Amino acid sequence: MPDDIIAPAPLAAGTLRIIPIGGLGEVGRNMTAFEIDGKILIVDCGVLFPEEHQPGVDLILPDFGFLKDRLDDILGVVLTHGHEDHIGGVPYLLKLKGDIPLLGSRLTLALVEAKLKEHRIKPYTLQVKEGQVEELGPFELEFVAVNHSIPDALAVAIFTDAGSVLATGDFKMDQLPLDGRLTDLREFAKLGEDGIDLFLVDSTNADVPGFTPLEREIGPVLDQVISRATKKVVVASFSSHVHRVQQVLDAAHANGRRVALLGRSMVRNMGIAADLGYLKVPDGVLVDYKKAGDIPDDKIVYMSTGSQGEPMAVLSRMANREHQVEIGEGDTVILASSLIPGNENAVYRVIDGLTRLGANVVHKANARVHVSGHAAAGELLYCYNILQPKNVLPIHGEYRHLVANAKIAQSTGISPERTFIGRNGTVYDLKDGDVREAGQLDLGFVYVDGSTVGAITDADLKDRRILAEEGFISVIVVVDAQTGKIVTGPEVHARGFAEDDAVFDEVKPKISSAILDAVQSGTQDPHALQQVVRRTVGTWVNRRLRRRPMLVPVVIAA
Amino acid sequence: MPDDIIAPAPLAAGTLRIIPIGGLGEVGRNMTAFEIDGKILIVDCGVLFPEEHQPGVDLILPDFGFLKDRLDDILGVVLTHGHEDHIGGVPYLLKLKGDIPLLGSRLTLALVEAKLKEHRIKPYTLQVKEGQVEELGPFELEFVAVNHSIPDALAVAIFTDAGSVLATGDFKMDQLPLDGRLTDLREFAKLGEDGIDLFLVDSTNADVPGFTPLEREIGPVLDQVISRATKKVVVASFSSHVHRVQQVLDAAHANGRRVALLGRSMVRNMGIAADLGYLKVPDGVLVDYKKAGDIPDDKIVYMSTGSQGEPMAVLSRMANREHQVEIGEGDTVILASSLIPGNENAVYRVIDGLTRLGANVVHKANARVHVSGHAAAGELLYCYNILQPKNVLPIHGEYRHLVANAKIAQSTGISPERTFIGRNGTVYDLKDGDVREAGQLDLGFVYVDGSTVGAITDADLKDRRILAEEGFISVIVVVDAQTGKIVTGPEVHARGFAEDDAVFDEVKPKISSAILDAVQSGTQDPHALQQVVRRTVGTWVNRRLRRRPMLVPVVIAA
Repeated sequence: MPDDIIAPAPLAAGTLRIIPIGGLGEVGRNMTAFEIDGKILIVDCGVLFPEEHQPGVDLILPDFGFLKDRLDDILGVVLTHGHEDHIGGVPYLLKLKGDIPLLGSRLTLALVEAKLKEHRIKPYTLQVKEGQVEELGPFELEFVAVNHSIPDALAVAIFTDAGSVLATGDFKMDQLPLDGRLTDLREFAKLGEDGIDLFLVDSTNADVPGFTPLEREIGPVLDQVISRATKKVVVASFSSHVHRVQQVLDAAHANGRRVALLGRSMVRNMGIAADLGYLKVPDGVLVDYKKAGDIPDDKIVYMSTGSQGEPMAVLSRMANREHQVEIGEGDTVILASSLIPGNENAVYRVIDGLTRLGANVVHKANARVHVSGHAAAGELLYCYNILQPKNVLPIHGEYRHLVANAKIAQSTGISPERTFIGRNGTVYDLKDGDVREAGQLDLGFVYVDGSTVGAITDADLKDRRILAEEGFISVIVVVDAQTGKIVTGPEVHARGFAEDDAVFDEVKPKISSAILDAVQSGTQDPHALQQVVRRTVGTWVNRRLRRRPMLVPVVIAA
Repeated sequence: MPDDIIAPAPLAAGTLRIIPIGGLGEVGRNMTAFEIDGKILIVDCGVLFPEEHQPGVDLILPDFGFLKDRLDDILGVVLTHGHEDHIGGVPYLLKLKGDIPLLGSRLTLALVEAKLKEHRIKPYTLQVKEGQVEELGPFELEFVAVNHSIPDALAVAIFTDAGSVLATGDFKMDQLPLDGRLTDLREFAKLGEDGIDLFLVDSTNADVPGFTPLEREIGPVLDQVISRATKKVVVASFSSHVHRVQQVLDAAHANGRRVALLGRSMVRNMGIAADLGYLKVPDGVLVDYKKAGDIPDDKIVYMSTGSQGEPMAVLSRMANREHQVEIGEGDTVILASSLIPGNENAVYRVIDGLTRLGANVVHKANARVHVSGHAAAGELLYCYNILQPKNVLPIHGEYRHLVANAKIAQSTGISPERTFIGRNGTVYDLKDGDVREAGQLDLGFVYVDGSTVGAITDADLKDRRILAEEGFISVIVVVDAQTGKIVTGPEVHARGFAEDDAVFDEVKPKISSAILDAVQSGTQDPHALQQVVRRTVGTWVNRRLRRRPMLVPVVIAA
């Protein structure tokens, strides 16, 4: 256990405990637990997508295992909106206890229910909307509309006997949103007037100066690009970005083109959004992708997934000519999306592939085809000045984002002592308007790989990184159990090490003679002989080739 | 051999053949060969740094192996400037033949000589400078000053009986460079007036609209940040960026601070630059890093390497508290550098680490502390309009950059038929002002890993990627050579697969019984039994765990 882990004291009656479980020091797997008088409320339960130093991992979950003994005390999970980094962990939580109620807006619940269906889970849900107040044991919840890059997002105010909290979820403050649904600053003002003791606030863009541009500024750019296109148009974006897709539908429609949706998640999510009325599909604009091939090139727009260069998504497959929609000379491809750090090489490979096929590729770097979903520094200033919370805990962000957000809070007059930079597992206790750090839990990463959850650990990932960098050499020797003499081998198997196995001809006699020497000086234990093999091969490969592959010596006494 | 490889016809007398060997479709390992009448000239010989899909590779060389039989015909290697992507491959070329002469400017040769010294090679060199003309067999060379992010860069004009070529190397057109050494557009004008048949031109920033800002605009920003700093200042940049370091020295000096250089390459390169007069060190400003600890925090600036988040470089070690210079509350760190695509996660990890230690981190995203070294689209327009070459071959860039550059050329009136988009190994023949594509060589990637060159292949890298994503399971079974019955095993060794080996308890009996079944039905060949093991383990791991590790079954008959 690391030195800085401090078990919190038992929670005193009438005190509200707040534990951020995920989302601090990272962009993803957002999850916060609130506890008072033995009852627990959770806000969000998302996943984090792995970085390059976590190879082969499918998803990373918040480390909510410490709640396993408390499942019966969890009164509900509030889901602020339908993005994976806020709902993706729900199936794994519900596998522990299936009847924990989920609270969220109509669209949010529809998206999480579709996800849970794939896991064969039917959840208990409570649909809520802005303005609504719900009692959940000792928690009184009030939901507040916020604007984000997915419709129907909610902030949640949590009132308890110990004090009040406002958690924004992800949000920005687009002042002319497509659906007219503003972040409700009038309600923020009222809540602030009544007094918010602790403000949990999205930090993702806190280090971006100024203001996030309006989503609606993208529409005219899309319209212009599509109107100038003479052949096929492909637009790639996030499969949950209803308003971005709305603008593509509108621009296509205005230019006499029909739209085919491509990609499983795009088709599923936009089906849900259209059914529920969040996506307004102009009459007759949508066409099934199977029939899109019959439509002339200058009359069709494909709306696809894969804007982050994901190798299995539609856009990558198009770039590799592995998709039925064939990109050719004069086609136009628009990446109407952000470029998430770490995806640059993958995205640029896709752009190069599409360019090679003759496409004109329009993206963030050469046209205003994307705006962020998060409040920039200028917006956060408005927010703090309107709300004037007593204490602030920046959430949702890498460490630098949390610090930037705290500095913004302080610039509006909140004292540094009331601005908290935490990490996952930091325990905060709130009572009478005061927040204090009460401990630090030891929370780690929970890796999903295939159908295994938590089977892969950081030690395995370290091994994977070594295997990736250096490959491995496995040496197998069978020795006579009685005499210790070599019966078979050394057999050398290597992968990721060298094309030509002849490289090992040099070391095999060295291994044999090292074993012989060891046996002659009385060593017969296979484990000890394995160490002899390891040293011999390690020295050779390091001195001769200046490499450090993983070594797997196996000595078998038969 | 891929379908699109076309062996070029033998080179006709009096025709100039141009073969880009590296640098097309990539940013790095720039190298071009020119041949006429049996004699060869090479321009640049650089390395490429690996991307995340090439794990463990140290360097990637241009695939110049096809020149192995022609080494005696190589009259010289012109090095346009001292960056790794233009000189890094020289040691590997000279290992094939040590006496190939190197031509370059004073600083370029000094840097390549220092590099060759580490490889224990002393080269034959010919120092040249702008305006100089040299005869090299059938090649007449004229060197032209160009401005870049390293001093003393040269373009080279190549005159032959078949026609003339101008190769820019890397360049931009800073109109107020720190050292007053402009890209010599007056000479470009004169060369154009006389007629340039083929223009090989840097494409790196061809897709960036407008103009690269002036290097000297960074000085005041550095000065302002340093003047406001109350504690230690660390500036990280590229170790060959003499003018950037110059501005740091000047800003430090103006603020009464001394400067300690950190990092082997920084110390070496700046030593060379100062000795040769390219770096003007203000009196007494430099201090040995060993003595820097005695200087008060508000009187010192550390100039370091590691601006790309390289794990072994100074800045990463500082962020991880593994460097003797300890970063603390109130220190200032400036990343005066670009953010090369693919390095984002590494760089942000360093920024987060430094922020966590209390530093104020200033970087490209929040201050003008970097400008590019390459000409943007606006500058390239000037260049084409002044030179007016007959034919254009964009070099140095990913495919999208080459295409963007070709479009710029065409916008100045050069016809598409005279604008060539090539790839590495495309063969061009020039005669009487006309260029035609004459074939395509099959050139690949040559990987340096440790002391091995070319031992690692694309197949090994594929194995490494599988190992990284999935780990491996090795199963060893010793069977009786006579009866086929299992003597020992199955022993299962796995790495990067699961923390707990107990996961294999389930599959071991399956392996044993599969072997038994196979032996009973007459299979005794170890190879066939290995396939039985592979199938058994593969089916189990895929169905039960939905994973696909690398499987290494070993059946030994003893």
